Amino acid sequence: MESRTPGPYETGLDRTAANYVPLTPITFLERSAAIYPDQLAVIHGSIRRNWAETLRRCRQLASALVAAGIGRGDTVSVVAANTPELFEAHFGVPMSGAVLNAINTRLDAASIQFILEHADARILFTDREFSKVVRQAVAAMATPPRVIDIDDPEFEGGELLGDMDYEAFLAGGDPDYVWQPPGDEWQAIALNYTSGTTGNPKGVVYHHRGAYLNAVSNALSWEMGSNPTYLWTLPMFHCNGWCFPWTMAAVAGASVCLRHVRLEPIAAAIRDEKVTHFCGAPIVLNMICNAPAGLMDGITHTVKAMTAGAAPPAAIIETMERRGFQVTHVYGLTETYGPAVQCVWRTRWNDLPIEEKARLKARQGVRGPMLEGVMVADPLSLEPVPKDGRTMGEIFMRGNNVMKGYLKNPKATAECFAGGWFHTGDLAVWHEDGYVEIKDRSKDIIISGGENISSLEVEDTLYRHPAVLEAAVVARPDPKWGETPCAFITLKPGAKITRDELTAYCRDHMAHFKVPRSIIFGPLPKTSTGKIQKFELRRQAKDLDDGRDL
Amino acid sequence: MESRTPGPYETGLDRTAANYVPLTPITFLERSAAIYPDQLAVIHGSIRRNWAETLRRCRQLASALVAAGIGRGDTVSVVAANTPELFEAHFGVPMSGAVLNAINTRLDAASIQFILEHADARILFTDREFSKVVRQAVAAMATPPRVIDIDDPEFEGGELLGDMDYEAFLAGGDPDYVWQPPGDEWQAIALNYTSGTTGNPKGVVYHHRGAYLNAVSNALSWEMGSNPTYLWTLPMFHCNGWCFPWTMAAVAGASVCLRHVRLEPIAAAIRDEKVTHFCGAPIVLNMICNAPAGLMDGITHTVKAMTAGAAPPAAIIETMERRGFQVTHVYGLTETYGPAVQCVWRTRWNDLPIEEKARLKARQGVRGPMLEGVMVADPLSLEPVPKDGRTMGEIFMRGNNVMKGYLKNPKATAECFAGGWFHTGDLAVWHEDGYVEIKDRSKDIIISGGENISSLEVEDTLYRHPAVLEAAVVARPDPKWGETPCAFITLKPGAKITRDELTAYCRDHMAHFKVPRSIIFGPLPKTSTGKIQKFELRRQAKDLDDGRDL
Repeated sequence: MESRTPGPYETGLDRTAANYVPLTPITFLERSAAIYPDQLAVIHGSIRRNWAETLRRCRQLASALVAAGIGRGDTVSVVAANTPELFEAHFGVPMSGAVLNAINTRLDAASIQFILEHADARILFTDREFSKVVRQAVAAMATPPRVIDIDDPEFEGGELLGDMDYEAFLAGGDPDYVWQPPGDEWQAIALNYTSGTTGNPKGVVYHHRGAYLNAVSNALSWEMGSNPTYLWTLPMFHCNGWCFPWTMAAVAGASVCLRHVRLEPIAAAIRDEKVTHFCGAPIVLNMICNAPAGLMDGITHTVKAMTAGAAPPAAIIETMERRGFQVTHVYGLTETYGPAVQCVWRTRWNDLPIEEKARLKARQGVRGPMLEGVMVADPLSLEPVPKDGRTMGEIFMRGNNVMKGYLKNPKATAECFAGGWFHTGDLAVWHEDGYVEIKDRSKDIIISGGENISSLEVEDTLYRHPAVLEAAVVARPDPKWGETPCAFITLKPGAKITRDELTAYCRDHMAHFKVPRSIIFGPLPKTSTGKIQKFELRRQAKDLDDGRDL
Repeated sequence: MESRTPGPYETGLDRTAANYVPLTPITFLERSAAIYPDQLAVIHGSIRRNWAETLRRCRQLASALVAAGIGRGDTVSVVAANTPELFEAHFGVPMSGAVLNAINTRLDAASIQFILEHADARILFTDREFSKVVRQAVAAMATPPRVIDIDDPEFEGGELLGDMDYEAFLAGGDPDYVWQPPGDEWQAIALNYTSGTTGNPKGVVYHHRGAYLNAVSNALSWEMGSNPTYLWTLPMFHCNGWCFPWTMAAVAGASVCLRHVRLEPIAAAIRDEKVTHFCGAPIVLNMICNAPAGLMDGITHTVKAMTAGAAPPAAIIETMERRGFQVTHVYGLTETYGPAVQCVWRTRWNDLPIEEKARLKARQGVRGPMLEGVMVADPLSLEPVPKDGRTMGEIFMRGNNVMKGYLKNPKATAECFAGGWFHTGDLAVWHEDGYVEIKDRSKDIIISGGENISSLEVEDTLYRHPAVLEAAVVARPDPKWGETPCAFITLKPGAKITRDELTAYCRDHMAHFKVPRSIIFGPLPKTSTGKIQKFELRRQAKDLDDGRDL
């Protein structure tokens, strides 16, 4: 039926510079600076910069990087809080042709070292707050990156580690620098490490095309309008802040920076800067719900909150909405540029009882506008499960906002893309109305305060302790953190160790947020084939009374 | 500085089915049908179809087309009013791999014949209303397309011309048909003929990528939100209704069809269907402004109106906004998928006097979110003019929503893309704030009631009359139509012809909307080199008193 030889529609109609431009989110920065030069882009302490200034600083950063020998294919790492420097790096680094690697600031020195080495970081921008671990990480490297300090007056303490600070580095760049757009929209723009199932984190590579599309997807699906004001409660190192630095450029919104997720500055920002949008794990919403009387006074406008990582409980949704917050539940992974699936709210649900609304809103949802497909299917055959709300399967996604792949890890890349779908590792049911709902996570990920913790990584560390015979770590539901790691330990015959000693050992060998908050000693339940029954341990962890844990 | 050999970011990170899907607006239809199956998609007379039904009908159309031998690279033409069939064709035709060619229903038989032949149309869907010219056009063809009738109960009159009607054709298709997405996002999706500067129209080819991006650009820049209700005052044959069939799928909005742009059904639709958005030439806004007392009663919600083709006069903007309509002025060409440039409204202009607001809003504006660049530059050197609001230059655009090119016309394609920018042919100034404003049209296009008329084409016809020595056609400002063609004629020595006779001749040889409404006999002003001074004629046309024209 199809004509296989090129017909008139394929002849003399090639790509030209006039009608084909590789997609990149940097274009949004240029557009906002051109149309809204005087509109606020970045707010941080006493700093208030507009889009014209922000473009000039990003060009300056790119120029300084190029002068420092950085170019296409190089990695520029950043260990920073949510400050203007990291926001600017989302544009300035790719404008130099390089790849931005924003590192989780809660990691321990060994993990940061691993990332800097694996990413082959050429330059590291680092904030004083994290100087202790960063100093350790860099000191241990055979070929350390050049270190440049972020010397933020909003933070006191820590040390300067580099040969100059960010502002001095910027001063060496040209604010009118003519940056080179990517020659190919498949070119890498960012590198984000995820814990995954093994001890070593995997480097998730984003490309310009995906960053562009997911930035637009955020704006479109959240109905952000033009010139919103966005509060940075979500770390920018989490999937590039779910691509929101680029989204803010697309909608010419103002970014209100925030070093620490604390209630007072959040309330002040919402009230004084008229924040319209923020993202965060349910723990952030929980914090707002439990705000002391009076703290949220004076906030009269509607604020949209986007949450992910765990289903927001009914009580939180109810309290948030009573206080004028509209909560949107989204779902995604580092591999999908952050939120790719959204619990799209149907107006016909508006009049349901709050418990029913919470039940509907707890579901992960349906594909966002730029995702091409989401399904719940058999993990091996990829056969979709029935949409019955009961049959378990794995969530699969495909589309242009699925990562380019894992850096220097073709095996893991091939495995997770097997069959033409991205394997999320999350187990879910598929409801009749097409909404997916996570029921378990096959990768044994514990999400605590919005951070992913690999239970296998924690187990690895525990197993390395001379007293430990067997270790199994599962998630324990927690009213504050969502989940916390709970360790079940069988000691070697004759070995003795207290919970406190084992906790101290863990704190010496892993990031503090990964340390098990509950430790139970005893034999582990196993299947007939010797496999530890994690399902049973999860049940036990859920039923623990507080007297039994630390 | 750059590493030229593929580094780790280019190794083992190739496109796969999981992370690369060619962009196509058809994906939005599938998404809306999946998420909002029960939400209204199409309203026409007594027809009210939801997104699930619409997807099934589009699949059915694609399936029936494939069964009829249609496939990739084939052209399917449509001569239709704004009815569900043409809406569905925007999806069903490309779902078969073919290219949609929606033809301007106001064209004469010869023009339609030319288009059908040039496009090599394999199937023609045609509405009874246009049977007279379509019959003539098809009858004159050596290899006519198969003709299928659109037998719309909302229209009385005309004849059925084909071997079956659209519903019977659809019935032969499979509503569960598994359509094939485009293998390449550069594949053609639509073909739209534009009058341009020569007598023969040029076929503007759109691709899936551009249609996808411009559909999103509409939703984003107009802040449409989810589930808007859109009234079809703009013909769907105009640049595929400025891509709004695809936009409506992206935002799961309802399309209220409208066969004729008449005040009563417009008022009724806005009131009864709670229309939130519509597009149209300023003449449509003018119609609403001049609505008789009482007709617009009962409309209490805000309606957004998008207009283009001519700057909306201050009085119209003022009246529209007083009546609760928000007017957005956009600019584009058939070659840019419709609106690509937008007069983005700045909130700081809100408190200006209405004349000042109208002056600002009359400007064509700045690049839309998906256009990569717009500039006013020297037509030959492409050197940008100063942003002084005075220096004239030509408007140039570049980006992914610039057409693929002109069908079977590599010369015109190469010319209009020379230097890596699309040459619009529109002359403009560039204001200090970056907004472009058209001051003249170098291509001699007259825009009458939103329709483009090539003055050269009208002149060609006039020149063919035996009594005519010289003819020059320019735009004459018109309070109702925006502009009308005004002809200046020098007769041959001794020749005699009246205005009525010449008008009758024109009506026999061109579409009625192109016929000059004013004819002035006399010598034509010329430069020393013999070139007709069109500038002087435009001045004369503007100053004409009504006694002198027909």
